[in-house]
Amino acid sequence: MFVEIVSTGDELLVGEVVNTNASWIAKRLTLMGFTVRRITVVGDSIEEISDVLKNALSRADIVIVTGGLGPTRDDVTREAVARVTGRRLVLHRGVLEELLSRRRCEKEAAERMATVVDGCRIIPNSVGAAPGMVIEYGSKLIICLPGPPHELKPMFSRVEDELKKFSGGTVLVEKRIKVKGLPEICVYGKVSRILEKVPGVYIKTRVLEKGVEVYFLGRREDVERAVRMFDHLM
Amino acid sequence: MFVEIVSTGDELLVGEVVNTNASWIAKRLTLMGFTVRRITVVGDSIEEISDVLKNALSRADIVIVTGGLGPTRDDVTREAVARVTGRRLVLHRGVLEELLSRRRCEKEAAERMATVVDGCRIIPNSVGAAPGMVIEYGSKLIICLPGPPHELKPMFSRVEDELKKFSGGTVLVEKRIKVKGLPEICVYGKVSRILEKVPGVYIKTRVLEKGVEVYFLGRREDVERAVRMFDHLM
Repeated sequence: MFVEIVSTGDELLVGEVVNTNASWIAKRLTLMGFTVRRITVVGDSIEEISDVLKNALSRADIVIVTGGLGPTRDDVTREAVARVTGRRLVLHRGVLEELLSRRRCEKEAAERMATVVDGCRIIPNSVGAAPGMVIEYGSKLIICLPGPPHELKPMFSRVEDELKKFSGGTVLVEKRIKVKGLPEICVYGKVSRILEKVPGVYIKTRVLEKGVEVYFLGRREDVERAVRMFDHLM
Repeated sequence: MFVEIVSTGDELLVGEVVNTNASWIAKRLTLMGFTVRRITVVGDSIEEISDVLKNALSRADIVIVTGGLGPTRDDVTREAVARVTGRRLVLHRGVLEELLSRRRCEKEAAERMATVVDGCRIIPNSVGAAPGMVIEYGSKLIICLPGPPHELKPMFSRVEDELKKFSGGTVLVEKRIKVKGLPEICVYGKVSRILEKVPGVYIKTRVLEKGVEVYFLGRREDVERAVRMFDHLM
């Protein structure tokens, strides 16, 4: 199952904000057995987001879009998703009433944030204001979450059960081992031998400022077997 | 002048590593007057990197590729760049001798890392091993840098002068102001009025856990004028 992440926001493109949302989501999806194929960062433009989303949907089963759901004029994720899916934007009365009753925002802002893609399922935002959306699009799923990490994280948890159904309940584990005093190519040589014998495991070497990190990912039994072999080879 | 960043590495897609390289580069490029249009994270696959690079070159004047220059089999940026540009890969004698003389690596790893795109200019790597490459491709520029941040950062500095020539010597400044006790839409209302009067400045509001951050970016005189107006409006 392929997933792509589309991170929207000029603040990411000017380097003002590090894209921790994408890594956070990618880690969770990976441990649920999904393969994250691409992460694309794009600015606050309907044309740009539409183009990236359309391409992502041509490759992935699930596309997660972050950011651009707020009340300001440069929050245009709603418009882009509507354009790509050919759906209308509709005012969601329930969301509007909830936003106004919480007095978190003015009427204009509330109306903008309560405007959602027709037929979507609302992901409530109990921390901030803008709700998220789950849009079924043919056999594919588009999930829109707001950009602020403290809003995004609890909202992602609300769709995890749904995602688990897609992934068939796979659970992966990870393990990191640091190696000092050996060049990466030597460590990689040992890794290659393990990969031949435990093909189900994903192993990646990475050069750190001091030493090399070996990262194992896979089903628990595969990771344990691979780590035992690695310890034996070192 | 449009720039795109292509970050390669499975470790980014599994969420094991946060893509700080892209933000770091994006910030530097932005302050040099470039517009970073997209950042794409892609796995260690020749096909995937080639596809992303080809598309990035169709939109941007400069494409910066990070990662995939090491000695292991999954370091395939060289191959992807060669494929997209239609160049051969050649063994660079000077780089090879330097790598071997520094005894940083075995012959096989050295030969792999000294294999570069024909006609490229080498960016020396005084911290680690794998050199970077600057490839002129028609009127465009492809810059390849290794993934480890402690190698990438000093190597980026080595190409900054060349990039400044492209950007015409523009220098931008930034300023952040935190606002408490006002919803984002109200802050944005004030920002809109400033944007009308100082069109050269880029201003972005962002919801924090407590309050709203307003980020100003532009030529010094524009930012100073915008900040004065903002203080006056608050």
